Amino acid sequence: MSANYVWVNDSLIPSDDARVNISDLAVQRGYGIFDFFMTIDGQPVFLEDHLDRFFRSAVLMRLDIKMSRDQVISRINQLIKKNNLSDSGIKIILTGGFSPDGFNIAAPNLIITQQNFQIPRIMHEHGLSIITHEYQRQFADAKTLDYLQAIWLQPELKEKKADDVLYHSHGLIRECPRANFFIVTKDDQVLTPESGMLKGVSRKQVLEISAEFYPTEARDVTLDELRNAKEAFITSTTKNILPVVQIDGKVLGDGRPGAITRALAEKYNGMIYGS
Amino acid sequence: MSANYVWVNDSLIPSDDARVNISDLAVQRGYGIFDFFMTIDGQPVFLEDHLDRFFRSAVLMRLDIKMSRDQVISRINQLIKKNNLSDSGIKIILTGGFSPDGFNIAAPNLIITQQNFQIPRIMHEHGLSIITHEYQRQFADAKTLDYLQAIWLQPELKEKKADDVLYHSHGLIRECPRANFFIVTKDDQVLTPESGMLKGVSRKQVLEISAEFYPTEARDVTLDELRNAKEAFITSTTKNILPVVQIDGKVLGDGRPGAITRALAEKYNGMIYGS
Repeated sequence: MSANYVWVNDSLIPSDDARVNISDLAVQRGYGIFDFFMTIDGQPVFLEDHLDRFFRSAVLMRLDIKMSRDQVISRINQLIKKNNLSDSGIKIILTGGFSPDGFNIAAPNLIITQQNFQIPRIMHEHGLSIITHEYQRQFADAKTLDYLQAIWLQPELKEKKADDVLYHSHGLIRECPRANFFIVTKDDQVLTPESGMLKGVSRKQVLEISAEFYPTEARDVTLDELRNAKEAFITSTTKNILPVVQIDGKVLGDGRPGAITRALAEKYNGMIYGS
Repeated sequence: MSANYVWVNDSLIPSDDARVNISDLAVQRGYGIFDFFMTIDGQPVFLEDHLDRFFRSAVLMRLDIKMSRDQVISRINQLIKKNNLSDSGIKIILTGGFSPDGFNIAAPNLIITQQNFQIPRIMHEHGLSIITHEYQRQFADAKTLDYLQAIWLQPELKEKKADDVLYHSHGLIRECPRANFFIVTKDDQVLTPESGMLKGVSRKQVLEISAEFYPTEARDVTLDELRNAKEAFITSTTKNILPVVQIDGKVLGDGRPGAITRALAEKYNGMIYGS
């Protein structure tokens, strides 16, 4: 990895020097939030949506950013200028801060990092194979640092040759650890969960695009509906739209990326990259 | 706070200099485990039990300590000698490490800290007031860094003038964020949950002491049993045994620490401090 510059509170420093004292509540108690967005040709993508969510996550988790939205944007712009990367991912982390008693929220530490990252612009021909796992993320509306379940599952995904995992709870599908999940029903309805999961920025855009062309709804989606779906796909900031063609070892539809998934991906990519 | 020495991997350094790079999975994803024990007169208390649990948590969370138990003990002893504190709390944290992709477990970072800490040796005359909250800790058998729920609840506890919170799930009581929970039934049975919670080291000792004198059982305990209890108390490394006299604003029994609670606390303190 290149040693890009990163912000740690008020210091813009090389990432190798970017450290926090171990008394931070992230290290002590895993407490914090973050958000993540892409830059393409040096320009942030859907920045306002990501900042909306970042500030909302902070409120939900009782963290005081102590900085205006404009100040955060100013730091992001300085970072982009300093690192001079074309396509990248920028992550903003807000931790629980240096807590004297290790148990009460203190003045949060704000970290902003940037790394080279380019999303492959061609559509996957084969689609993703996923597994399902019963799990309900806590504080599901907030983008917290809690990825215990996801990271713990990684070796199992490798073993099962799965690309990702879909969480479900009480018979309802929820989300992948870093992506939202959509299905297309046999009568061409586009459905995605509306509660118990993080509302992704890509999800919001895809819902809007989809509604122009197909019956589209954000509501509870059952495991039965998943199993009877004609198509499925995930949406995420780092993956845009990717088709899902296999679930728990069972092929979905004809095993190839579906027509509606492909149409939506084309429109979505057109919006992001220009057509 | 005094700047005690701490271990960060192979370095024994002042706590003010104890930092980890922000690429650590604890900062990025809240991923890690820990354990915590006391020293009294410079001697670790129940060290073997705490190390048993620490190594077990590591296995459960797929973290490779890369160090023998003897090596960990050696570091603890060096730390105790260096800081020369009489009564203290020692915390061992094992993080997910510097993960190149920020999502797969790497070589963990081992941090050992020590702080002055003395448990008040007199029994609380008034007992604790607690509230209940529906919550099931994930990976309940492991002592992970995940305290999102507990830290989030702290302002609410203050507002309600509660000393602690008892988690329950599916009608069963589980644990407090940093303590185990016991009840004494109207017919003098001592009960504590057996699943869905972390098995505390103090809990184990108290179970053994209690079994000598009272019908004692570790099994599912319902919210109904809690509400009908004659006495209740918590056990923890930093609190030993503390009576609970109020639950969700309702006084338990006659509102004073119960006779069996007091008897057990006396015996437990006798074991730890000598009688």
